[in-house]
Amino acid sequence: MSGVWGNNIKISIFGESHGGAIGINISGLPVGKDINEEEIYKDMKRRAPGNSNLTTARKEEDKVEILSGIFNGKTTGAPLCGIIRNNDTRSKDYSKLKSVMRPSHSDYPASIKYKGFNDYRGGGHFSGRITAPLVFAGAIAKSILKEKGINIGAHIKSIADIEDTELNPLNIDNSILESVKEKDLPIIDDNKKALMEHRILSAKMEGDSVGGIVQCAITGINAGVGAPFFDSVESTIAHLAFSVPAVKGIEFGKGFELTKLKGSEANDSYYYEGEKVATKTNNNGGILGGLTNGMPILFNVAIKPTASIIKYQDTVDIENKEDTKLQIEGRHDPCIVPRAVVVIEAIAALALLDLMEGEF
Amino acid sequence: MSGVWGNNIKISIFGESHGGAIGINISGLPVGKDINEEEIYKDMKRRAPGNSNLTTARKEEDKVEILSGIFNGKTTGAPLCGIIRNNDTRSKDYSKLKSVMRPSHSDYPASIKYKGFNDYRGGGHFSGRITAPLVFAGAIAKSILKEKGINIGAHIKSIADIEDTELNPLNIDNSILESVKEKDLPIIDDNKKALMEHRILSAKMEGDSVGGIVQCAITGINAGVGAPFFDSVESTIAHLAFSVPAVKGIEFGKGFELTKLKGSEANDSYYYEGEKVATKTNNNGGILGGLTNGMPILFNVAIKPTASIIKYQDTVDIENKEDTKLQIEGRHDPCIVPRAVVVIEAIAALALLDLMEGEF
Amino acid sequence: MSGVWGNNIKISIFGESHGGAIGINISGLPVGKDINEEEIYKDMKRRAPGNSNLTTARKEEDKVEILSGIFNGKTTGAPLCGIIRNNDTRSKDYSKLKSVMRPSHSDYPASIKYKGFNDYRGGGHFSGRITAPLVFAGAIAKSILKEKGINIGAHIKSIADIEDTELNPLNIDNSILESVKEKDLPIIDDNKKALMEHRILSAKMEGDSVGGIVQCAITGINAGVGAPFFDSVESTIAHLAFSVPAVKGIEFGKGFELTKLKGSEANDSYYYEGEKVATKTNNNGGILGGLTNGMPILFNVAIKPTASIIKYQDTVDIENKEDTKLQIEGRHDPCIVPRAVVVIEAIAALALLDLMEGEF
Amino acid sequence: MSGVWGNNIKISIFGESHGGAIGINISGLPVGKDINEEEIYKDMKRRAPGNSNLTTARKEEDKVEILSGIFNGKTTGAPLCGIIRNNDTRSKDYSKLKSVMRPSHSDYPASIKYKGFNDYRGGGHFSGRITAPLVFAGAIAKSILKEKGINIGAHIKSIADIEDTELNPLNIDNSILESVKEKDLPIIDDNKKALMEHRILSAKMEGDSVGGIVQCAITGINAGVGAPFFDSVESTIAHLAFSVPAVKGIEFGKGFELTKLKGSEANDSYYYEGEKVATKTNNNGGILGGLTNGMPILFNVAIKPTASIIKYQDTVDIENKEDTKLQIEGRHDPCIVPRAVVVIEAIAALALLDLMEGEF
Repeated sequence: MSGVWGNNIKISIFGESHGGAIGINISGLPVGKDINEEEIYKDMKRRAPGNSNLTTARKEEDKVEILSGIFNGKTTGAPLCGIIRNNDTRSKDYSKLKSVMRPSHSDYPASIKYKGFNDYRGGGHFSGRITAPLVFAGAIAKSILKEKGINIGAHIKSIADIEDTELNPLNIDNSILESVKEKDLPIIDDNKKALMEHRILSAKMEGDSVGGIVQCAITGINAGVGAPFFDSVESTIAHLAFSVPAVKGIEFGKGFELTKLKGSEANDSYYYEGEKVATKTNNNGGILGGLTNGMPILFNVAIKPTASIIKYQDTVDIENKEDTKLQIEGRHDPCIVPRAVVVIEAIAALALLDLMEGEF
Repeated sequence: MSGVWGNNIKISIFGESHGGAIGINISGLPVGKDINEEEIYKDMKRRAPGNSNLTTARKEEDKVEILSGIFNGKTTGAPLCGIIRNNDTRSKDYSKLKSVMRPSHSDYPASIKYKGFNDYRGGGHFSGRITAPLVFAGAIAKSILKEKGINIGAHIKSIADIEDTELNPLNIDNSILESVKEKDLPIIDDNKKALMEHRILSAKMEGDSVGGIVQCAITGINAGVGAPFFDSVESTIAHLAFSVPAVKGIEFGKGFELTKLKGSEANDSYYYEGEKVATKTNNNGGILGGLTNGMPILFNVAIKPTASIIKYQDTVDIENKEDTKLQIEGRHDPCIVPRAVVVIEAIAALALLDLMEGEF
Repeated sequence: MSGVWGNNIKISIFGESHGGAIGINISGLPVGKDINEEEIYKDMKRRAPGNSNLTTARKEEDKVEILSGIFNGKTTGAPLCGIIRNNDTRSKDYSKLKSVMRPSHSDYPASIKYKGFNDYRGGGHFSGRITAPLVFAGAIAKSILKEKGINIGAHIKSIADIEDTELNPLNIDNSILESVKEKDLPIIDDNKKALMEHRILSAKMEGDSVGGIVQCAITGINAGVGAPFFDSVESTIAHLAFSVPAVKGIEFGKGFELTKLKGSEANDSYYYEGEKVATKTNNNGGILGGLTNGMPILFNVAIKPTASIIKYQDTVDIENKEDTKLQIEGRHDPCIVPRAVVVIEAIAALALLDLMEGEF
Repeated sequence: MSGVWGNNIKISIFGESHGGAIGINISGLPVGKDINEEEIYKDMKRRAPGNSNLTTARKEEDKVEILSGIFNGKTTGAPLCGIIRNNDTRSKDYSKLKSVMRPSHSDYPASIKYKGFNDYRGGGHFSGRITAPLVFAGAIAKSILKEKGINIGAHIKSIADIEDTELNPLNIDNSILESVKEKDLPIIDDNKKALMEHRILSAKMEGDSVGGIVQCAITGINAGVGAPFFDSVESTIAHLAFSVPAVKGIEFGKGFELTKLKGSEANDSYYYEGEKVATKTNNNGGILGGLTNGMPILFNVAIKPTASIIKYQDTVDIENKEDTKLQIEGRHDPCIVPRAVVVIEAIAALALLDLMEGEF
């Protein structure tokens, strides 16, 4: 029942979709690091709702108030807590959901676990909204990593069956990933934009939703980061990734596809690129034995279609203990994937900062 | 750099492939539980090498000596430490690998991380051999869970492109999974045996290797186990799964396939099955919002082809700082997947025991 | 560098004396517990400055805003974060202390640890003010424990050489401890009030300060709480106690005095008091082998005289690297002990709640 | 119920007084450090029983077998596990203690906590014997710290009312502390030897026991080690100290005596000793605000008289639920303090190594 994560840094999260405020307390940050409020603002905006017709109509400015841990614009080494007030909440939308369980949401298991005392409004503490503090913490982490030459960027790998262009796993072009961050639909190949939007908007028109895959790349990281049993880079990233609502799978490098290859095809041969040891392929996504090998880290995260759909669904009323039908009202994303891209960047940054903290 | 995992139980692992002994210390076990040495022995044997021509020729009896934590055959509540002596080690096989890095192994990143002080013989602490203590701990965990009616079983879902029969995600037949545990090749459909063995043995003949997918099912678990941010059931299982060498991906329920479905197809509708809330499909693999929903838990783990192959490979010599070629000698599995099945069961059992500890 | 504590509950603290706000995020609280704002307010007031001429003239209302984790007045099981705004800060008082180190304060070691980036105003994150969030969390913990019949109370055992009446370690009278909570000077024997006040006020007049001992008693706790190696009740309470600024010693039961007794004098003999096992003496303060034995828990905490005194002191200027003299201005407590009483109650309550969490 | 401690290093302890073996698994050790088996052996011998007529007649060689984590005599960075076989166990001595509770031992609370499943022979996991693995881990930690110029030494400050000479808190003479390590009775002033031995032996003759205080000094440590809330140096040392059976109090610097001083007497004034900031007194024992200030760390630990005495004691039989009398047989120390000195050094070393791990 813990809201705390991390070994070297520790993040402690709080808040509900319709409570007073959501936020995060980060301890163990390296000292003397600039807090760039503009960078934070940019990332918050990438996750914020209401930016386009592809997302929920709920509007939240998601302005972070930093309560502690900075002095003269720099980290002090003391815990840094940031909070975000909830503004545009319409709790009445959810009133009838107290006993009628939304399929594929946390409603039912949460009502069991918390014996009915959980704040069910908008999913309460289980809401995707609680990823906003993660994005805030991630923005700080990314900026600290960047000082060390480590760059993190993600893009939509696919929406339903529509795929974006692949990244070159041997040589990530960070300028591409930077430009993706500016886009409404964070993809590499803008030719796919119309198709993807069409998938999303036609689902929306049907009162339905779609999912997709986010791919994340990390460059500039040295070999030797991570640990075997039990703090592998994969364990650390995966742990955080599965904290993000709607994530149902993760794979590193070629991941599941590797199971179809022979060892001679899957193994990444080494060679000297000048003084530096490099690999000729990067099927392992930059991680061997749980440690970075100096190549770019690459991983894919599967995000299921938004559970909240307008279509009628079969479900149960746990108060009256009977089957019923449900049409979810309220404002929901027909596809959460575009807003999830920056969340995945954030968890990657936090995972790395935790694994590398001694180096800052 | 931690070898410790867990919140309610804590496992602390140790050992190297060619050191004195490997083992694990488990603290936080519930008290008064029978330690069934025969069950432990069975599981150890499922993972042990040398059982068939599909696995490495290294022979290890893998007998566990329990040093503490039991009294009159039952758990005492004090830490339970089990050790396994290494017997059949041929360290000379590895002597030349000190500076020549085996591709897709931990050798290179480990030599960087540990500044050359790591025990490189047979992969040292990174060896798959270190999963033996996990299987020991898992056997204890499984037996404790079984008392509560929770059953854990796994099978090979695929070897390369050959797929085993699917489990019914709504209604797992535990007798099938129990019978799978008795087989050399732990699959459901024995008609696939010849094909899978052929894939493995022809890779072996070529000095190559193959990978595969392990599917694990957990039945009998109540709704409401797990926690949001950051101790979701998925986070907990994935964290441990990625500690297992060669694991490169994990997905829950339909996982990556979910990203191709619409919300209306992916959502698992509820209904009352008598007094019990059940779902009509189980695409989410029994987990919603990070919590169990009372349906069977299902997840798939991608295991890459064994990195140690006999075929010549390009690599580097980090002492002489030059490119070189390598032919790995020693005894290796052409496919690690059959032996990994019980390891995946073990990590599932440990994850659940940790999440549920208060209930025993 | 962690601001997080706890195993079953986790508290994550933040804030600086002169920052925006101070606060605490508590995760792992049991669900469905009433949050009694009046009880919280009472405890906050016991710690708050400005209540009498015995304490600092700084006035802080110390009103807690709860941002999350409650719904309809009860705990939800989600993290509960409370914040307290800093109001009456006069940062200019501290401006000259950036390079001139206050003796016996954290100023010098903190400037080394944080490379000069720490917020030095009023001690920053090291300020005694940061105990206010602990008192808030402690008030919640005390109220949860009280439901189970566990009562926690403390009093001033001594100020300088003036001692309060002893508690009967075999039979704590909770009504006495409750009445102590209402007093300006939280002592049992009001006849000592004048003497103690005199010690404090004469030190104040001299620009000096005095210290003292707080004694804390916990009643109603069952035998068997705690754990050996490394989560003894003593370890858990001591760990938190030494987080409180100015604490320099702790002892359980007769503590240091026990070292002067023989085993036959020190041992607490058992007898049956009806159905209940009890001891004839309570020299061990209710704890044996790190576990509670069912008798009242008693411990004493040594609190050094307030480090901030007005008298001239020898010190160093670390910017100019020279010896200098310092007269501390600002508003300070001539004796922190009266305000520390409720802080010690708070850490006792948090320690017990952490050790017992499964029981709620 | 956890047997694991530490943030940067993690120690995981196991074993019972009369089980197969006791031991400890240490993860997070810095790499490439020499393991000096002779140093380890020396420390083990200082704690081992049977060395003189002042201690128990139980003889244990306490030879440690290191199972993992070293290669070519140096730490590898992988977990290092050491085990010690139990040899001279006479379990029959304890057979009648299953239901008759030894006063001031863990017997009674342990039987409640573990529902009677605990190994009660010789105190089981609660036995002072379990400090042997701590001494092993401490010897490694001390040797790593020594490389950095950090020296740890302890002596008996008092046995009953007999006091050893004081250390100079401003300037610890390490050669004195080294020579103390060679003595049967680890004190500074050998003139006190006869008196202390007399106190111990006359208690022994009466079938009784005595306690005492151990003082520990740490030199060569830089300013800035530790952390506020909740990882103060005091919290970290105290946490481990109270894991040691029989410890009932701890104080840093002047500790409880500080509560009798005025601020102007207690504060440690600063001055420049050449380039180095030093203090004119060291009443705070080298720790301010939870951080080291560069002065020697000094702390005292109160150790109660051995609970096992031969004299008849009143107690209860929990099986028959009746009062009874008990005369403890078996072999016991009339005073545990001489053997505890090296245990306190060990916990100090482990605490510091944990706090400083990044620096190695």
